[in-house]
Amino acid sequence: MNHAVSNEEVLKRVRGILSRQPFSALLKTEATQALADGTCEFRISIDNNLMQHMNMVHGGVLGYAADTGLTFAAGIVYAAPVITSEFKINFLRPVVGQALIARGSVVYKGRSQAVTRCDLFVEKDGEEKLCATAQGTIVLLPESGGAGA
Amino acid sequence: MNHAVSNEEVLKRVRGILSRQPFSALLKTEATQALADGTCEFRISIDNNLMQHMNMVHGGVLGYAADTGLTFAAGIVYAAPVITSEFKINFLRPVVGQALIARGSVVYKGRSQAVTRCDLFVEKDGEEKLCATAQGTIVLLPESGGAGA
Amino acid sequence: MNHAVSNEEVLKRVRGILSRQPFSALLKTEATQALADGTCEFRISIDNNLMQHMNMVHGGVLGYAADTGLTFAAGIVYAAPVITSEFKINFLRPVVGQALIARGSVVYKGRSQAVTRCDLFVEKDGEEKLCATAQGTIVLLPESGGAGA
Amino acid sequence: MNHAVSNEEVLKRVRGILSRQPFSALLKTEATQALADGTCEFRISIDNNLMQHMNMVHGGVLGYAADTGLTFAAGIVYAAPVITSEFKINFLRPVVGQALIARGSVVYKGRSQAVTRCDLFVEKDGEEKLCATAQGTIVLLPESGGAGA
Repeated sequence: MNHAVSNEEVLKRVRGILSRQPFSALLKTEATQALADGTCEFRISIDNNLMQHMNMVHGGVLGYAADTGLTFAAGIVYAAPVITSEFKINFLRPVVGQALIARGSVVYKGRSQAVTRCDLFVEKDGEEKLCATAQGTIVLLPESGGAGA
Repeated sequence: MNHAVSNEEVLKRVRGILSRQPFSALLKTEATQALADGTCEFRISIDNNLMQHMNMVHGGVLGYAADTGLTFAAGIVYAAPVITSEFKINFLRPVVGQALIARGSVVYKGRSQAVTRCDLFVEKDGEEKLCATAQGTIVLLPESGGAGA
Repeated sequence: MNHAVSNEEVLKRVRGILSRQPFSALLKTEATQALADGTCEFRISIDNNLMQHMNMVHGGVLGYAADTGLTFAAGIVYAAPVITSEFKINFLRPVVGQALIARGSVVYKGRSQAVTRCDLFVEKDGEEKLCATAQGTIVLLPESGGAGA
Repeated sequence: MNHAVSNEEVLKRVRGILSRQPFSALLKTEATQALADGTCEFRISIDNNLMQHMNMVHGGVLGYAADTGLTFAAGIVYAAPVITSEFKINFLRPVVGQALIARGSVVYKGRSQAVTRCDLFVEKDGEEKLCATAQGTIVLLPESGGAGA
C-alpha cells in the first residue's frame, strides 16, 4: 500500500481483515470509512447482547470498539501487520442508543510504532454524542515484510 | 455488605450481577472467586468466537476481561453500584490457549472512587502465563443508597 | 467565572495560580494563552537543569508540562479548584530544542469531573514538533464553593 | 550486567546515571535501593520548591518520580540504555509530608520492551502512605550495544 492507493482500496482491505475476525463478526462490526491517512470509522448496532446489567452498553464493548479504531488506524498507515501494545480509555457518559461509532486516527507514526486516538460516539434518535475517548500505542510486527495489513 | 459478609455471599452477589449482563453471557464469563477485600477472579473459555484474524484472542476480549476484574473489585468493596471511569491496559504477549483468567484487586479505596488493578492470564496446557495488566478508576454511583452492588 | 469573563481575565487568573506554585517557578513556566473554553498554552524555556543523562529533556519535565496543561484546562472551565485524578502520556520523540510548549484543551466537561487533553511541542530553530500527547481526568474539588480557580 | 552482578554494583550504576541527570539533581533525588531483578527505590526530600499552590507536592513531581522508578526498573534488567514510551499514573491522595518514595519493579520483560510499575509513597511523621501508582512501557534503545545502562 502506498500513497497512490485509493480510499476505496483501503476500505476494502480493512473490511477484508475485519471479516476474518470472528470476534468482530460476533459483535457485527462494520467498517464504514477508511482513508489512506489512517482515519477510519466503525459502526456497531446496539442490541441487547451488548448490554450490562443497568441497561447500558457494556464497557467491554467500548473497549473493543476503541481497540478496533486504534489498531486499524495504525494498520492502515503501515499497510502491514500490527499489534496493539497498550491503550487507555476514558468513559464519558452512559451509552444508551441505537449505534456505537468508533472513529480512529493517527497522532504520530514512527519507524516501528504509532500513537493513535479513537473517539467513540453513541447515536441516539439521529443525534451523535461523544461517549468515550482512547489513546494507544500500536506496534509494527517485526516479522512483517510489509505485505499488506 | 459489611465485613461480616462471608466470601460465599460475596461470590453469590458477583454471580448474580454477572448473570444479568447479556454481554458477559455472550462471552460465557464465569466468576470463580470473590473475596470481601475486592479480590476477584473470572474465567473465560477461549473458543473461536473470541479470535481476531491471526488466530489469537482479540484484544477487545482482553479489554472486556480487564474491565470486568477492575469494576467488580471496586463493586465488591463498596457493596454498591459503581461505574468505570477509565482504565489502561498493557498487552504483554499473544493470547493463545484454552482459557483467559482475569484477577482483579483493589489498590486504593477512597470515599467516592477506587483505583483497582487486573492481571490477565492465559491458561495453556495446564500452565498459566501473564498476558496483560490493567489499572483503572472506578467511581461509586452518587445515586447509590448503598443497597447492594 | 462565567461566559462573560474575558480571555484576558482568564489568562490573568491562570498566571495568578501559576505564580503561587513554587514548582512551576522552579521550572520557569509561563502561561502564554488561556481561553474561557479551557484552551490554554504554557511555555518552558529549555535549559540544562531540565535534562536527563542523554542530553534530552527529562521525561519528568514532560510529565509536569502535561499535568499543567491538563489541569488548567479543567480549572478554567470549572472556574473552581480542581485536582488531577489520573493521566496518561505517550512520548513521541526525544525532546531537544529551545522551548517546550504545552497546549491543553477540554474533551468533556461533566458535572464533577472533566476529561482533558494536552499536546506537547518542542520548538527548535523556529520550528515546532509534536513530542508527546496526554489525556487525563480532572476532578472538581467537592469542598469548592465555586469561588475562583 | 548479568545475574552474577551484585546488588551493590547495580545500585552504583543507577546512582551513576542519576548523577548525570541535571533534572534529578535539581529535585535532589537519591537512589536508595536497586536490585538485579529491577526492583528499585528512590527518595525525594519534600521542600517548598516542589509544591503547588495548595501546599501539596505538585503532581508534576509525582509524575517525575513515577517516570524515574518505571524507567530505572527496566534499565536495570536490560542493563542497557532504555527510553520511556508511555506511562499512566493515578493520584490517590494529596501529598503532604517529609519525603516522597518511589518504588519501581518489572511486571514483564520482553525482547525489546518491558512493562513496569511504580508505587509512590509519602512519608509523614515516620509513617508511609501509598499516594500514587503508575504503569508504563519502557523500550530498549535499538542502537544499544548492551554496554551498560
